[in-house]
Amino acid sequence: MKRVFLALIISLAMVLAMTSLGVASDVMPAWNEGQAKQSIFDFVQRVTTAGSPDFVAEAERIAVFDNDGTLWSEQPAYFQLFFALDRVKALAPNHPEWKETQPFKSVLEGDLKTALSGGEHALLELVMASHAGNTTEDFGRIVTDWINTAKHPRLNRLYTECVFQPMLELLSYLRENGFKTWIVSGGGVEFMRPWAERVYGVPPEQVIGSSIKTKFEIRDGKPVLVRLPEIDFIDDKAGKPVGIHKFIGRRPVAAFGNSDGDLQMLQWTAAGPGARLCLYVHHTDAEREWAYDRKSSVGRLDKGLDEARAKGWIVVDMKKDWKQVFP
Amino acid sequence: MKRVFLALIISLAMVLAMTSLGVASDVMPAWNEGQAKQSIFDFVQRVTTAGSPDFVAEAERIAVFDNDGTLWSEQPAYFQLFFALDRVKALAPNHPEWKETQPFKSVLEGDLKTALSGGEHALLELVMASHAGNTTEDFGRIVTDWINTAKHPRLNRLYTECVFQPMLELLSYLRENGFKTWIVSGGGVEFMRPWAERVYGVPPEQVIGSSIKTKFEIRDGKPVLVRLPEIDFIDDKAGKPVGIHKFIGRRPVAAFGNSDGDLQMLQWTAAGPGARLCLYVHHTDAEREWAYDRKSSVGRLDKGLDEARAKGWIVVDMKKDWKQVFP
Repeated sequence: MKRVFLALIISLAMVLAMTSLGVASDVMPAWNEGQAKQSIFDFVQRVTTAGSPDFVAEAERIAVFDNDGTLWSEQPAYFQLFFALDRVKALAPNHPEWKETQPFKSVLEGDLKTALSGGEHALLELVMASHAGNTTEDFGRIVTDWINTAKHPRLNRLYTECVFQPMLELLSYLRENGFKTWIVSGGGVEFMRPWAERVYGVPPEQVIGSSIKTKFEIRDGKPVLVRLPEIDFIDDKAGKPVGIHKFIGRRPVAAFGNSDGDLQMLQWTAAGPGARLCLYVHHTDAEREWAYDRKSSVGRLDKGLDEARAKGWIVVDMKKDWKQVFP
Repeated sequence: MKRVFLALIISLAMVLAMTSLGVASDVMPAWNEGQAKQSIFDFVQRVTTAGSPDFVAEAERIAVFDNDGTLWSEQPAYFQLFFALDRVKALAPNHPEWKETQPFKSVLEGDLKTALSGGEHALLELVMASHAGNTTEDFGRIVTDWINTAKHPRLNRLYTECVFQPMLELLSYLRENGFKTWIVSGGGVEFMRPWAERVYGVPPEQVIGSSIKTKFEIRDGKPVLVRLPEIDFIDDKAGKPVGIHKFIGRRPVAAFGNSDGDLQMLQWTAAGPGARLCLYVHHTDAEREWAYDRKSSVGRLDKGLDEARAKGWIVVDMKKDWKQVFP
């Protein structure tokens, strides 16, 4: 009996010691010690400590994460664009007319610059040709096959290995503290759902993204959902708070982004009552990843950087704050 | 030590006894013993027993419930229509022109029949006038105030007291067995979310419904979402599987409805591999609730009844299968 009591006392002392030190040093090891990491810990402690004036009930602990540039890289172009291009190439044998039609002609000739010179219209054509026309089940299989085999052109590894180790640790840390973690991305929802659970621990029903319309049909006695070449929802910029409200119906208490496309999501999160955590990942590491912000065509961070500094949001300096970038 | 061991053996014996009896008799007490109740128990046992060929992992235990006529009554009209009418009356002082404009004129004169004689167009006008034009926060407060005070014209009690006790028990029973319960309703998502958690135990992020568009704006430095008089999504009939795929991204293993408007949701659920539970609530109890099916203008159950019988889905005979209707 004495020995049990002693063990209990020792355990208790260890717990107290860890609490008084803030957080055990093995939490989020890919983050360097510093203000960014400490601010995250402080926030989580405030909202999870029962009796604290900032305490947030578990059901309200909603954390939203942008994907491109926040959870994985987005250079030299959004990864979903590489998927669309690979898909256009795979579908080309069924579309002989593409050899003579832009933007497909240039894609098939490997001239991405000309292909995308058509601007938004060209991009939309590529997305619709590569993403619509099949059933949701077929599309899920196509994405899964691609994500399991395609490699990043510069990093030369699977796209799912281009995710940020510090952000994976942050996702886990928040979930361990009772948060529900959501993805709120401009990327296609059906492009992310097939692998988001395995890679990020985020189940399909917690992935919000851009979408095309689908239509219910009975084919040969079997119900299917057919993907139509028509935009349903663009989950970017002012669309992000709209998407959050539409899908979650509660305001997040924590939001994580990396570009001006995430600014409205951070504003919407910050405007709620009580403690809030808003964080920007600033790409400052040309050596280990990429360095870009105000002038980048992909993932521009300009207005957001100013507002983050004015409002005291956390700006993660990737080079300084992250011990490790990729897993 | 011996006494502890004995207590353990007794507990174990009790657990085994309960298991061999199927389910303890105090589970879902508002259901009469019979085929409907037993079929639900059998299904849950099959999908939750590890090692069973029909075992379903907890993350995949998705159960979807229609609301109107399935979780609460829907006669003499959808409850949300009463909300819309009350709202039109409350807003009338700001709209003197309504005194001379249909369908508002008839609503204000208490002549519902004439008001609705304009068909879908009249209904849409009433919904937009009563549901749009304010912020999401304002609308949430308006719904909460109404649901806490308005009473059903015939049952003469709060609308939230017109819910079905057997279905509340079914929701709880499924959740206790690791299911995630979702509402998939033709009703407005923002009309249901403010009270679905308190009344049904279903959190806002698990409520899917029809919606109007919203727009993000900064008003006096504060971000708001403004409700626009424009349909975003109709979550009814073929829209239900579309909504399920859009919001959940997984196919349910169990679906509960009461009308032809739920048929496609049940078809979509039934078409997945493995064990499936599809159930229709058949309104057969004119005494305690209402009796209606093939010819009702509200909650018509015609094609669905035929398909349920052909496919062996459970059809709950409200009069026979439910010991108690309301809480």
